[in-house]
Amino acid sequence: MIATGDAGAPASPPVITLTTDFGVRDPYVGEMKGVILAVAAARGRAVHIVDVTHEVARHDVVEGALALEAAAGVFPAATVHVAVVDPGVGTGRRALALAARGQVFLAPDNGLVTACLGDGWRAFALEAPEYRRSAVSRTFHGRDVFAPAAAHVALGLALDRLGPPVADPVRLRWDEARLRRGAALGAVLHVDRFGNLITTIREAQVVALGTRVEVRIAGRRLPLVGTYGDLRRGQAGAMIGSGGRLEVAVREGSAGARLRARRGTPVTVSPTRSTTRWARARA
Amino acid sequence: MIATGDAGAPASPPVITLTTDFGVRDPYVGEMKGVILAVAAARGRAVHIVDVTHEVARHDVVEGALALEAAAGVFPAATVHVAVVDPGVGTGRRALALAARGQVFLAPDNGLVTACLGDGWRAFALEAPEYRRSAVSRTFHGRDVFAPAAAHVALGLALDRLGPPVADPVRLRWDEARLRRGAALGAVLHVDRFGNLITTIREAQVVALGTRVEVRIAGRRLPLVGTYGDLRRGQAGAMIGSGGRLEVAVREGSAGARLRARRGTPVTVSPTRSTTRWARARA
Amino acid sequence: MIATGDAGAPASPPVITLTTDFGVRDPYVGEMKGVILAVAAARGRAVHIVDVTHEVARHDVVEGALALEAAAGVFPAATVHVAVVDPGVGTGRRALALAARGQVFLAPDNGLVTACLGDGWRAFALEAPEYRRSAVSRTFHGRDVFAPAAAHVALGLALDRLGPPVADPVRLRWDEARLRRGAALGAVLHVDRFGNLITTIREAQVVALGTRVEVRIAGRRLPLVGTYGDLRRGQAGAMIGSGGRLEVAVREGSAGARLRARRGTPVTVSPTRSTTRWARARA
Repeated sequence: MIATGDAGAPASPPVITLTTDFGVRDPYVGEMKGVILAVAAARGRAVHIVDVTHEVARHDVVEGALALEAAAGVFPAATVHVAVVDPGVGTGRRALALAARGQVFLAPDNGLVTACLGDGWRAFALEAPEYRRSAVSRTFHGRDVFAPAAAHVALGLALDRLGPPVADPVRLRWDEARLRRGAALGAVLHVDRFGNLITTIREAQVVALGTRVEVRIAGRRLPLVGTYGDLRRGQAGAMIGSGGRLEVAVREGSAGARLRARRGTPVTVSPTRSTTRWARARA
Repeated sequence: MIATGDAGAPASPPVITLTTDFGVRDPYVGEMKGVILAVAAARGRAVHIVDVTHEVARHDVVEGALALEAAAGVFPAATVHVAVVDPGVGTGRRALALAARGQVFLAPDNGLVTACLGDGWRAFALEAPEYRRSAVSRTFHGRDVFAPAAAHVALGLALDRLGPPVADPVRLRWDEARLRRGAALGAVLHVDRFGNLITTIREAQVVALGTRVEVRIAGRRLPLVGTYGDLRRGQAGAMIGSGGRLEVAVREGSAGARLRARRGTPVTVSPTRSTTRWARARA
Repeated sequence: MIATGDAGAPASPPVITLTTDFGVRDPYVGEMKGVILAVAAARGRAVHIVDVTHEVARHDVVEGALALEAAAGVFPAATVHVAVVDPGVGTGRRALALAARGQVFLAPDNGLVTACLGDGWRAFALEAPEYRRSAVSRTFHGRDVFAPAAAHVALGLALDRLGPPVADPVRLRWDEARLRRGAALGAVLHVDRFGNLITTIREAQVVALGTRVEVRIAGRRLPLVGTYGDLRRGQAGAMIGSGGRLEVAVREGSAGARLRARRGTPVTVSPTRSTTRWARARA
């Protein structure tokens, strides 16, 4: 986690990311950071804290899991990702520390880490009282359980010190896209700020269908293009998004509004023989 | 503020927090950070800046004071908290530096620091021109007065160098809860993002009433429970929140909307003899 | 960029700022930071990342340019400013690295840096593949092109290593205020969170008109005052804002709503002989 850089230049501190549904109006996220920094300061150590998002829709574990999946792919090795979308806080649900894909994930055991479980993952329950705040509230485990654990792990604590191993973390039942009769059948997973529709269909599934395909959603047939700029202003189209998933967008508009689509809206990609006038993806 | 950590690992820099009503759309907060970093860079020093919130309702000093109270409790010793909710900017109102509870608070003298005044506080007016920007605008003291002072203090400046002592900082007249005829009488102080109602009644006042109590608000009687999870979906109840105050919540709903409650709505906690079917708090 | 501070205290890391229209709900900004930190970690180096704003109105290059102008003025020398408001992502538009005013700006070549072009600027196209992510998506150059370039530049890479020089960066046609018949004629450029109207008229143009002036906008005549506090509650007035531009505000209200003003609404400052009862600016 700590490397020696150019002489005299400050060395890179360990990185902790935060993904929550706490919003940024209330001081809850600030409190989590205060706890992290207090643990680090007691050890005389620096950490670098990054907000992934705090605007996950309230209690929307699927949206939180998607944000975590997107972020985890680009951060440095050994980054500690804290995700708290936690409708079950204060109940018996477990809290997890997961080592997977060269990174660490701390989250309630409700499926948030589903997309991060790669080969050879190891998980532990956050139970050891010495890595929690001395008084744990029943409503704010982000501050009292996850934040101190994140600081200790970022500073080098081995995960198996946090509690017993967990063999069966909760997994979301993603509506993974299926291939049937030569078409990819999926659904909208998330509508982003721009009204872009992120779907369950992955790049490899689209590529497998060849270069001449069309996308059907909400009763319409859309071209598969390379990027927004291949569309006319106001035109709807599909493309492979930055996260490797099929996305549907309207250039300078909102696909969510135009197509009245939301999570669960079916999407199909299928080969076509038509000689199209639209721009061809990845041509 | 600066400790020596593990050999080779970067040491913890001083911490500065920001609490404002500036929002995050305009560059005002970024400008404050730029000024802080410029002062630090001129000294060759690192600082760690944390946003508590910038979404305090415009000019709402009570909401800002609550956020500051919540954050101050968890940050490391010697953290410098800057709070700017400042309807009087550019008028004769004083600017304060306050040492209290092992931390430092910089804020306009309008009551923002009311909840931070503990025993043995010391306060000074921010007047020394050498710790301000060379040109001070009349509309943006967050950038021109508070930010540079915060950087200098975080890097070690003694508070009494900033200006003359202040013996009478403005205090908000909190509607502190009262005990009368064996009941705690208070009011809603804040409605958070989730619609939870944070009240003036503190944990100790509730505990003093014994284990069988009920909460009355907006013409309804609610159970006191341990956490959200003790409520049925859609049920309203009260609990001790993460900040040590009585809160009223609706599980997977908004207490603010359901009870049509807002700041000032009266809340009462009183003993009850009824044999209730609801979960008991802290049982 | 790196100075030697007090012995034992952590030294100031290079600063990178981010200005985008990505919003804070989706993980896009977090992904940019992850890429920056991964480049820095591979070198064992620390960086300090600051959000200027991510709430620029979608595709609004003028608003992004204004935020960048405001921020650039206060950050330490050699700060690297990344600005991504990029309706043309994935098309043939160039990506720029600009050295100007002692700082560095990385942005799509669509006018975002217009206000940052000072004397003696130098610009280069971001083309060298070794300073991009290995796979560049066609929809997210913020993450795949600008973020890695920012990290490399902040850690010391010379700009001319990024690509060929650019002699003709795109410039916005600002509606700069004009002086005609002894009056300053301008327009509203931006309406901020508080409803304040930031205009194209600059402080020097107002000062040149003398001390007795009036401001006309939306059919009304307003006083020029020193700050909000010089206005009565609910009164509209004009003042020199913190960015050195004429602003129109309503004390404890919204000038945008009251005057039904928006970007492009004409504003005039002209001398007056009237003996006014209003507070005088900078008197």
